[in-house]
Amino acid sequence: MTRFIKKDKQEIGLSPDELVFRGQKKTDQVLLRIIDFDSTNLTEDDVKTVNEVSKFQHKDTVTWINVDGLHNTSIMQEITSAFNFDNLVMAEVLNTDARPRVIEYDNCTLITIKMLRLDEKNGKTIVENLSLILTKPILISFQEQKGDVFEPVRERIRKQKKRIRNGGTDYLTFALLDIVIDNYLYVISVLGEKIETLEENLLLNPNQNIINEINNYKRELNFLRKSIKPAKEMIFSLAKTDSDFITESTYVHFKELEDNISQANDASDDYREILSDQLNIYHTTISSKLNDIMKFLTVFSVIFIPLTFIAGIYGTNFEYVPELSYKYSYFIMWIIMIIVAIGMLLFFKKKKWF
Amino acid sequence: MTRFIKKDKQEIGLSPDELVFRGQKKTDQVLLRIIDFDSTNLTEDDVKTVNEVSKFQHKDTVTWINVDGLHNTSIMQEITSAFNFDNLVMAEVLNTDARPRVIEYDNCTLITIKMLRLDEKNGKTIVENLSLILTKPILISFQEQKGDVFEPVRERIRKQKKRIRNGGTDYLTFALLDIVIDNYLYVISVLGEKIETLEENLLLNPNQNIINEINNYKRELNFLRKSIKPAKEMIFSLAKTDSDFITESTYVHFKELEDNISQANDASDDYREILSDQLNIYHTTISSKLNDIMKFLTVFSVIFIPLTFIAGIYGTNFEYVPELSYKYSYFIMWIIMIIVAIGMLLFFKKKKWF
Amino acid sequence: MTRFIKKDKQEIGLSPDELVFRGQKKTDQVLLRIIDFDSTNLTEDDVKTVNEVSKFQHKDTVTWINVDGLHNTSIMQEITSAFNFDNLVMAEVLNTDARPRVIEYDNCTLITIKMLRLDEKNGKTIVENLSLILTKPILISFQEQKGDVFEPVRERIRKQKKRIRNGGTDYLTFALLDIVIDNYLYVISVLGEKIETLEENLLLNPNQNIINEINNYKRELNFLRKSIKPAKEMIFSLAKTDSDFITESTYVHFKELEDNISQANDASDDYREILSDQLNIYHTTISSKLNDIMKFLTVFSVIFIPLTFIAGIYGTNFEYVPELSYKYSYFIMWIIMIIVAIGMLLFFKKKKWF
Amino acid sequence: MTRFIKKDKQEIGLSPDELVFRGQKKTDQVLLRIIDFDSTNLTEDDVKTVNEVSKFQHKDTVTWINVDGLHNTSIMQEITSAFNFDNLVMAEVLNTDARPRVIEYDNCTLITIKMLRLDEKNGKTIVENLSLILTKPILISFQEQKGDVFEPVRERIRKQKKRIRNGGTDYLTFALLDIVIDNYLYVISVLGEKIETLEENLLLNPNQNIINEINNYKRELNFLRKSIKPAKEMIFSLAKTDSDFITESTYVHFKELEDNISQANDASDDYREILSDQLNIYHTTISSKLNDIMKFLTVFSVIFIPLTFIAGIYGTNFEYVPELSYKYSYFIMWIIMIIVAIGMLLFFKKKKWF
Amino acid sequence: MTRFIKKDKQEIGLSPDELVFRGQKKTDQVLLRIIDFDSTNLTEDDVKTVNEVSKFQHKDTVTWINVDGLHNTSIMQEITSAFNFDNLVMAEVLNTDARPRVIEYDNCTLITIKMLRLDEKNGKTIVENLSLILTKPILISFQEQKGDVFEPVRERIRKQKKRIRNGGTDYLTFALLDIVIDNYLYVISVLGEKIETLEENLLLNPNQNIINEINNYKRELNFLRKSIKPAKEMIFSLAKTDSDFITESTYVHFKELEDNISQANDASDDYREILSDQLNIYHTTISSKLNDIMKFLTVFSVIFIPLTFIAGIYGTNFEYVPELSYKYSYFIMWIIMIIVAIGMLLFFKKKKWF
Repeated sequence: MTRFIKKDKQEIGLSPDELVFRGQKKTDQVLLRIIDFDSTNLTEDDVKTVNEVSKFQHKDTVTWINVDGLHNTSIMQEITSAFNFDNLVMAEVLNTDARPRVIEYDNCTLITIKMLRLDEKNGKTIVENLSLILTKPILISFQEQKGDVFEPVRERIRKQKKRIRNGGTDYLTFALLDIVIDNYLYVISVLGEKIETLEENLLLNPNQNIINEINNYKRELNFLRKSIKPAKEMIFSLAKTDSDFITESTYVHFKELEDNISQANDASDDYREILSDQLNIYHTTISSKLNDIMKFLTVFSVIFIPLTFIAGIYGTNFEYVPELSYKYSYFIMWIIMIIVAIGMLLFFKKKKWF
Repeated sequence: MTRFIKKDKQEIGLSPDELVFRGQKKTDQVLLRIIDFDSTNLTEDDVKTVNEVSKFQHKDTVTWINVDGLHNTSIMQEITSAFNFDNLVMAEVLNTDARPRVIEYDNCTLITIKMLRLDEKNGKTIVENLSLILTKPILISFQEQKGDVFEPVRERIRKQKKRIRNGGTDYLTFALLDIVIDNYLYVISVLGEKIETLEENLLLNPNQNIINEINNYKRELNFLRKSIKPAKEMIFSLAKTDSDFITESTYVHFKELEDNISQANDASDDYREILSDQLNIYHTTISSKLNDIMKFLTVFSVIFIPLTFIAGIYGTNFEYVPELSYKYSYFIMWIIMIIVAIGMLLFFKKKKWF
Repeated sequence: MTRFIKKDKQEIGLSPDELVFRGQKKTDQVLLRIIDFDSTNLTEDDVKTVNEVSKFQHKDTVTWINVDGLHNTSIMQEITSAFNFDNLVMAEVLNTDARPRVIEYDNCTLITIKMLRLDEKNGKTIVENLSLILTKPILISFQEQKGDVFEPVRERIRKQKKRIRNGGTDYLTFALLDIVIDNYLYVISVLGEKIETLEENLLLNPNQNIINEINNYKRELNFLRKSIKPAKEMIFSLAKTDSDFITESTYVHFKELEDNISQANDASDDYREILSDQLNIYHTTISSKLNDIMKFLTVFSVIFIPLTFIAGIYGTNFEYVPELSYKYSYFIMWIIMIIVAIGMLLFFKKKKWF
Repeated sequence: MTRFIKKDKQEIGLSPDELVFRGQKKTDQVLLRIIDFDSTNLTEDDVKTVNEVSKFQHKDTVTWINVDGLHNTSIMQEITSAFNFDNLVMAEVLNTDARPRVIEYDNCTLITIKMLRLDEKNGKTIVENLSLILTKPILISFQEQKGDVFEPVRERIRKQKKRIRNGGTDYLTFALLDIVIDNYLYVISVLGEKIETLEENLLLNPNQNIINEINNYKRELNFLRKSIKPAKEMIFSLAKTDSDFITESTYVHFKELEDNISQANDASDDYREILSDQLNIYHTTISSKLNDIMKFLTVFSVIFIPLTFIAGIYGTNFEYVPELSYKYSYFIMWIIMIIVAIGMLLFFKKKKWF
Repeated sequence: MTRFIKKDKQEIGLSPDELVFRGQKKTDQVLLRIIDFDSTNLTEDDVKTVNEVSKFQHKDTVTWINVDGLHNTSIMQEITSAFNFDNLVMAEVLNTDARPRVIEYDNCTLITIKMLRLDEKNGKTIVENLSLILTKPILISFQEQKGDVFEPVRERIRKQKKRIRNGGTDYLTFALLDIVIDNYLYVISVLGEKIETLEENLLLNPNQNIINEINNYKRELNFLRKSIKPAKEMIFSLAKTDSDFITESTYVHFKELEDNISQANDASDDYREILSDQLNIYHTTISSKLNDIMKFLTVFSVIFIPLTFIAGIYGTNFEYVPELSYKYSYFIMWIIMIIVAIGMLLFFKKKKWF
């Protein structure tokens, strides 16, 4: 169940540096993947203890430590100690329900953002919290579960792409955030294609199912917007941050993140409006159709009302009804009925009632 | 009765330093609870006179005085004198209908905010005004009634949590405000769960009760927003305040308050929109259902109209109706009727009217 | 008739320093009430000529001159000359249709605001323009008619309240504006009470009268907002003004005005939304009720349609209708009719149509 | 036909200094009216060639040249040369479809604004572009046609009003803009009066005509807003301009323009909302009325349905219908019918269906 | 198919300096058109290799290189090398789905904007991405396909228009952007004319087709807004840019771009509102018409209900119905029926039901 907010009673009043994992456990084993590189050398390693990580700390090379899984707080505690972070930093990393934010600490900058990923199997969008701890030679990224979202960046590092191999942890940060936002764009574009396809069915065959679909898409879009809007705020505040760990030349790239997240945000606004227009079109079409039916049928019944009345009159059993005995009465009745019917039709036609 | 604004005629034109309690009396006895601590020592005491309080004034330890109940203005007057506050300060504390705000006075900073608490028994939200008078060694908190909202903070103090025992009154202020805002998040998340549950019933069984519930939730949400939105303004202005009683290092925590109150605010916006979408879904479903009924029934009646007319024709008592005496007329009438009925059915089917 | 804007053709192109009273004459006699005080002495006087006023000009005491009635432009001219104001100042005072504003002139600061007062007799809200000319030792207030709105301030002065007797004209200005805004809050709270009371009737007995009431309240609220919103702008700009006649210590109080006017503004927004929600509830309730009626009645009529048709069939006068002569036909017809009726009822029940 | 935007294909890609008149020719003859004055002397003259104008250029007196009619580009060219303006300036003057703006050039400041004037004969609003070229000793105003809008200013100059005779071209600019904005207020107030009058008819006699009127007023209001909103932006930017040709003391007056245009803008917002409320009231009233009719009539028909059915039963021609031969059957049928009818009435009454 | 957003899965995680053309190939052959000029000389040339271009690089004259077609990345790479651009620059040029933006690089400024052009044949709007790389002596413009949009600028250059021949690449940039925005205005004005024409049909003959047209225009408008709104942001940020390649005197012209794009934006807002009003008018007219029909027809049927009932009563076959044998019964029945009918008509008339 996707919830818009989550706050348990037990979480109220926790100390801000308490290392409690408040999310769902999404993976069994905490995995630490390390890539250490400079423009010429590259080391890749999957390790399971924090000890193995700390050796990279005092090297000049760029070290990217990716942590999959957050539930093992003792590992988190070890990382905190190994790199000498304030407890507050890791408490933030574990608080996966918090809003995307940039926080500057004495010896690191923390960046958190929601990752949206499309589960291609069932078309559902998966949300996951990503935290990046940025220091000069080391970038630690925390994901809630194992995933291959960042594989393209690893590929670029492996393939010796000049820019990423020469950039520092700040450029790497950009590269990761860029992928996150590209995924936003992708998720919205997939949803958007469904919405635009809907439009054609809407006019041909408006029915309750389409309404349900529109409402589903609306809910999906609201859900996406819930991640995108605070992410936009975060990205814009990131580009204004005066962090020690971000070099001047990287800010140009952050500018690009701003443009991309704005585009995602605009698109979500656009689709929102399209959905609301579609609802309007649906209602107009439905009510226009009902109008047609009601008008036709009402006109139809009204024409028969006086005819049936006339027939009723001559169905009475009064002893003295002069017309009854006249030989042509029956035919005259038919003629009168036809005249009445045609007269009413003409009247309605003139009034443009059908 | 929860009212959106309250202003009695008698309150107009009162001097801003008049100590008049304008709220409801919610507790019998004014209670003063004191916790005095530094990183090593801790004293807890419940006292009933202000005299006992003043001795803490000139100590270096952090002293937190919690006042439950505001109706006894003479006690309030004593506190004012004991700590040498301006009368304006206490007048603000007593003005429980005012908006949340941060006011800096010469020798203290006043922070007021609405506390929202869920009464677990009846599911109602209780609102209460909280005022904090912040000076260097002493923090005085004023609640309208006795409550255990701040118990987690007391626990953290008692358990010698390092951060809170080493922090000053400003960190204590953060801890209290943090609980208040955590309660906002909790209250909204409880309401949110009800709203999200409603959604499933909405499609299965739309009825007037659901509308009433939606309207109740809407009113409840409006009520929460009334506290949250000005609280957000207050928290953001607090983080910008240049108060003598707040140390640089505490501002990081205020940043966190900003994030949390923003999250509460966003969630209330989200649920507001969800409720309004639910209303739309209700209306669409209801009207779609009515359409179905009306279409079916109208089609049904219209088919019988000409049939009944035909029967009426041959119920007339004219002496000369040639068809009446023909032997198979009755059966021919049945055949004609069936043909008319089927013809009309086909016509409606073709028009997609049912 | 309360109009949202008023501009006569004759007013176009008037010089900005032309002393023309453009409002309604609301009182016969222009009255000048003077209170002159310092922390120890107090003089009160009602005078009719401006000459008597000017003697207070060069004293060190605070002098508050209240002018009731603006139609006598020659008196206005005299005041202008006596205190050496620019003609522009008095022209602004006379322009009672202008927006609330703060204007700083060389030797004075002009503050104008709309006063809202509830006429307790007929429940109508009275609007009146208040202008305050603030100089160092003298404050001149202009009201359109005689009223006792400011009586509480006079009482506080008479009762030797320390703060007001020691404050200057700027504190007095605060005290007057405070009363004006307190009246806003009061007027809104009275309207608000009516609106909240309405809510209960709305669900019990929705009818056209309630709609009319809602529309009346909406119009009333729009009318109040028309005064409150520009007043809010004015108060906020006042707190930012760098006037020579306002001392630093008074700005704290202006902060309080900001809070109060914001509260009034928020409340008017809240009630506006409540009214719009009430309209929605009304429409939902009404249409839900109509749905119930229509469904029941339609189902009812539809059941009788085939029955009446069957009766019609056997009312025909064909000579050869085999069923007619069979002895139990009449009873069989009844049985068939009952079966048809029950069948249709079951069908409708299954379709959940009633 | 009033169009919201106008752009011909031929205008695309024109050089910004091309002197092409893009508007409608609204007058035959270009007329140049000159008023030259200082505090003591006054010269008025109507001239036809630009030569006669240039002599005023090097005098110390204030010279106001009013040009009626823009279609003669050779005259425009001459003015440009005579006063040594950049071609861009005059190109802007001729571009009568542009947004109101303030542009500062090396030797002049250009101010353009839309003039709204009410044609008292047919109640239509006439829009016209006004351009003011402001230099130190000379103000040139360009109108699209001859009009007497500025006559009050001329009168004030002629009557030796001190302020206008002593002020420079900047004060004159204020005086002209003041008239333009006064006309905005007047046009809105006239429309507003119509709208407020409509309200009374709305409740008494809601019909399609009223809807058409509401829609007309809405369109009219949209049209006015199209001029007022950009004018507001322009006036506010004017008050912030740091022009060489505007003296410090005149900025106070520009402040007044700000207030007036804000008032016009607010009023247009208010009326917009009132119109939208009126539409709601109309729909509510109409649908409430239809509800009443439908309910009454449906109840009425439903009561007769079983009665007619009963009559139908005894109109059947079965040979054996026991009731038919019983002497009081007919009266019993009447009694049963009356009981059924009353029973149904009571049922509907209890259900509050009418 | 016009899509609001486009993001392929393969594009996720691309390096920002990867030269990949992500758009549609819209032309076969990449064409480089060169105009090189100063105030006296002019050279025009169409070339196919980048080598021929580079010779203009170190001349003092203004060189405008227009590139039609972006699909040939090797040519793009050559341009990058020839002018020593960062790879990022050309990657941006190729990213035709990005938002309009201004990016400053070390040796150039990049400006991208969407071009809207009306295909006069089918009335469709064509969107195309335009990129401008601005350096001191050279301006390179990239279009997706060959077009004659900029022909008027070429004409102005050829005709030795002083301003454009004397201006630098920055003035040329203005001239190109001016044409782009003029096209916005033109496209909107063409759509606007259709919308305003629709209004007249709306009242005369409201039908489903008009709704479809309104919805089409709405979609078209949304599509235009999608280009115009970010373009407005870009233009405003351009006017604030502190680029080395833009001289002070050109900023005046950028101001004009601001005004024009604002006008386009306002007009799109206006038409949006007009369309939404038109939808309201449609619904009001339709429902008002249906009301009329329903009321008339219901009143009509209701009048016949009691009449038919009376006829039914006397159609019963009871043996003892006293009225049947009375000679004038039939005529009395008619009279009673007429009285009933007239009575009901009067009742309905009084109730103002038709």
